[in-house]
Amino acid sequence: MRMPALIDHHCHGLVADDLDRAGFEALMNEAPHASPLATTLFDSMLGLAIRRHCAPLLDLEPLVDADAYLARRRELGAPEVNRRLLGAAGIDTFVVDTGLWRDVLTSPEETAAYAGGSAHEIIRLEWVAEQVLQAGTDDFAGEVVSRLQASGAVGAKSIAAYRVGLELPATKPSADELASALAGVAPERLVDKTVSAWLAHTAVELGLPLQFHVGYGDSDLDLLQCDPLRLTAFLRGTVDRGVPVLLLHNWPFHRNAAYLSQVFDHVFMDLGLATHNAGVLSRTLLRETLELVPFGKLLFSSDAFGLAELYLVAALMFREAAEDLLGRLVEHGEMTDNDAQRLVDLVARENAVRAYGLDPR
Amino acid sequence: MRMPALIDHHCHGLVADDLDRAGFEALMNEAPHASPLATTLFDSMLGLAIRRHCAPLLDLEPLVDADAYLARRRELGAPEVNRRLLGAAGIDTFVVDTGLWRDVLTSPEETAAYAGGSAHEIIRLEWVAEQVLQAGTDDFAGEVVSRLQASGAVGAKSIAAYRVGLELPATKPSADELASALAGVAPERLVDKTVSAWLAHTAVELGLPLQFHVGYGDSDLDLLQCDPLRLTAFLRGTVDRGVPVLLLHNWPFHRNAAYLSQVFDHVFMDLGLATHNAGVLSRTLLRETLELVPFGKLLFSSDAFGLAELYLVAALMFREAAEDLLGRLVEHGEMTDNDAQRLVDLVARENAVRAYGLDPR
Amino acid sequence: MRMPALIDHHCHGLVADDLDRAGFEALMNEAPHASPLATTLFDSMLGLAIRRHCAPLLDLEPLVDADAYLARRRELGAPEVNRRLLGAAGIDTFVVDTGLWRDVLTSPEETAAYAGGSAHEIIRLEWVAEQVLQAGTDDFAGEVVSRLQASGAVGAKSIAAYRVGLELPATKPSADELASALAGVAPERLVDKTVSAWLAHTAVELGLPLQFHVGYGDSDLDLLQCDPLRLTAFLRGTVDRGVPVLLLHNWPFHRNAAYLSQVFDHVFMDLGLATHNAGVLSRTLLRETLELVPFGKLLFSSDAFGLAELYLVAALMFREAAEDLLGRLVEHGEMTDNDAQRLVDLVARENAVRAYGLDPR
Repeated sequence: MRMPALIDHHCHGLVADDLDRAGFEALMNEAPHASPLATTLFDSMLGLAIRRHCAPLLDLEPLVDADAYLARRRELGAPEVNRRLLGAAGIDTFVVDTGLWRDVLTSPEETAAYAGGSAHEIIRLEWVAEQVLQAGTDDFAGEVVSRLQASGAVGAKSIAAYRVGLELPATKPSADELASALAGVAPERLVDKTVSAWLAHTAVELGLPLQFHVGYGDSDLDLLQCDPLRLTAFLRGTVDRGVPVLLLHNWPFHRNAAYLSQVFDHVFMDLGLATHNAGVLSRTLLRETLELVPFGKLLFSSDAFGLAELYLVAALMFREAAEDLLGRLVEHGEMTDNDAQRLVDLVARENAVRAYGLDPR
Repeated sequence: MRMPALIDHHCHGLVADDLDRAGFEALMNEAPHASPLATTLFDSMLGLAIRRHCAPLLDLEPLVDADAYLARRRELGAPEVNRRLLGAAGIDTFVVDTGLWRDVLTSPEETAAYAGGSAHEIIRLEWVAEQVLQAGTDDFAGEVVSRLQASGAVGAKSIAAYRVGLELPATKPSADELASALAGVAPERLVDKTVSAWLAHTAVELGLPLQFHVGYGDSDLDLLQCDPLRLTAFLRGTVDRGVPVLLLHNWPFHRNAAYLSQVFDHVFMDLGLATHNAGVLSRTLLRETLELVPFGKLLFSSDAFGLAELYLVAALMFREAAEDLLGRLVEHGEMTDNDAQRLVDLVARENAVRAYGLDPR
Repeated sequence: MRMPALIDHHCHGLVADDLDRAGFEALMNEAPHASPLATTLFDSMLGLAIRRHCAPLLDLEPLVDADAYLARRRELGAPEVNRRLLGAAGIDTFVVDTGLWRDVLTSPEETAAYAGGSAHEIIRLEWVAEQVLQAGTDDFAGEVVSRLQASGAVGAKSIAAYRVGLELPATKPSADELASALAGVAPERLVDKTVSAWLAHTAVELGLPLQFHVGYGDSDLDLLQCDPLRLTAFLRGTVDRGVPVLLLHNWPFHRNAAYLSQVFDHVFMDLGLATHNAGVLSRTLLRETLELVPFGKLLFSSDAFGLAELYLVAALMFREAAEDLLGRLVEHGEMTDNDAQRLVDLVARENAVRAYGLDPR
């Protein structure tokens, strides 16, 4: 089995500055910081994976302790570390969500340049809406549509999960409903189910592949409202348009996302964020997902944010999990070498090319 | 460990006609068809399992490609394929749900005949109710009871999951409540929680073992409403009657079903539908279920529908999962050979014999 | 890897009387008794684990049959059995919930004495409230606070899960809200969300580490209301106080609990109850939990109740799971020996010492 270069269909920019230990830990996972009631966040599967796999790329022994790792990281400087880790990640195409920390993180082009790869943008719907609201307009709907069409983005992203949960309606809110809803929102932070629903339906109408944050995230969200099954009505209402809807992350609801990917023509999914967080234990997640997901519906993403380590670990964990599982299935006669190669090619590249209409190279 | 002939306590009839590739894929899993946005449904764990295990029974190499498989399938003709695959499945008793596609699928007797086995019928409550409504009657309740009693079925099945979700009340709706509810229903398709509840409670009162569709199904259902835990009130309200309630499929809520099977005397469960869909990865499901389910409460079913392949794969995956898991537990001293044999005998046959009052042979 | 003596941060007292088979089975798991529709509760992963691991400690062969095991148990007498099994469990500190069956079970001190260990008490909030209500008082709030402060307990426990579900509000109910709620409760059995919320917030205000029953329990609870994610609002409202909130059991929602433990500074979790119930299959639960839980947030507990067997099996399953998983991770270079030792020391002892402020020894 030959592992193709990966398309990372959902990721973020990097921090280009050096980080102290507290700053690094604050970016490791969805915890705001190491808890004063517990121990370092390096005490985690992610911490082990970073020490094991990233340390050698910084000329250190595998599993060197965290302080030594971080000291060497600062010694090399963030740009060199970003180059080394992204260069080793095996990703050649970065589809970057630009909706968060725009002033701090590297741009899609800067991010891809660390790896000598190419970049595409995903535009965040709530960010566009907030920009329009803050600028002031008589025609919110028209202005949002214009900006989405002019963005050059290969897809849009909804963070309804963070703002209002995923129970969006099957049909697009009317102009009147939208107007009523807009009268009550704060332009700085859009928290309104009608507006979120209007944005998501609008993206689909424009033919923009639509990513949804689903499942695991930080303590701002109510995880119970982020089960992908809550999207069922929205999915039923949009399936006939034939525009891809891509469920991101999904843990711990990844089996539910696999079900939706099977029964709805337009649903795709990934295991981003969980893949690096769970480190080597993320192999379980791939296995549980493959129970039901059609192989033509699963994508690779890192959901890396800020730290180059997260790109490297996510890509490596995905490759190791695929090689381990498919290797054993081939060995036991459950699939041929060709079957394994086809599955990996689909998930690593081809499904993303097809869903977003990318250049296949 | 000797594997006994299986009792398949929940399955459907077969298609007796030959199928082209689109027709075959439409019946493979809960997707309506291969998505135009993805690839063939053979790109799935189920597709691999069919190519691996069914191809040799049609005189082909294991893992032959899908077109060659389907060409040979048509060459032999559906009746011969049905005979070969069901004959090799190791099932000798078929407990058949006759509530769907009655004019298209083989009857229970025809189905069992392919394997030289015997058949029993499960009568679908909503189908009976719709028949009664369409015939017109002054005594809906009496007529439904008569038909259930005259049916000769060994059990009844509720598809409340598909129609109204599983949150049925603990007590039977009154005659007045039923009458009010009936005034508002469409005889062609019964969608009313009061009527569904009345039907389920009536089956239990009549002493009919009651199957519930739970969990995984096609996009007609709202999977979030099909968690077996939503049946808790109904189960509390019926436990004292001592009539088995059998939770079907359950994936991805199989651990929840195992819990209910432990704490309620009358609850049984299976892993049908998921077993063939997940192919060799369904071994995980058996392991997760056995965490809590009492061994006297788990049953084998295929939930095969239309395609003989689904019978063969479901039965084979169950046997391989049991042999793999129990073999390793015996090897590591976690159970004796006798313990393993007892567990397999219970799940393969004895629990079904006891729950439905079948002839044990 | 050296396994330290365990701190069992949530357990109950033992039955000191001899038990017949029905009495023993009634205490094995959350089933009220062996179902008349099924078979013995020894037909379970727990039954296998008891026969395998406890029989040799009663001078019998591993996996001797249940009747022989129970006969020998009665021959030795419960006190001797308790001494042998608790003595072999490797637990030296027992943090005992005294809220249930106070007249039947051994006291914390008696329980610990079987193992030559030390005891601490967890006081059950609903029990305290019911005592105060039954005694009659003009100052319910003041009286509850006094009793909690005078109790000497190292923590408090809420069984809101059993009484009202886990959706407790983010803020403490006011004195007026409490007074209104108290007017409507039965002193014998407190079932009121406002009072449960007031009790839980009060414990946190007093700085008492607060345990919540979460997930798996008997048929009195509605498991769907016991998902730890339902505590999200309460956790958001209490995180700034810096008082540990400890989520008990969690199965089948243990991944959700791991998420909460990562994103909220004050949340800790365990896998008690499930560990012994699932027997050797509980290894999966440890692996699924470690995906996301920070190693500084996971605790060992048995949740043993009544039967000494449950202490022995829970402790042994935890040790075997840790040794098996960590041993393989070390072998594959995923962690060092020191990393494995640190993880085990944290989970077995140090996290409990830190969360409850225990003497570390």
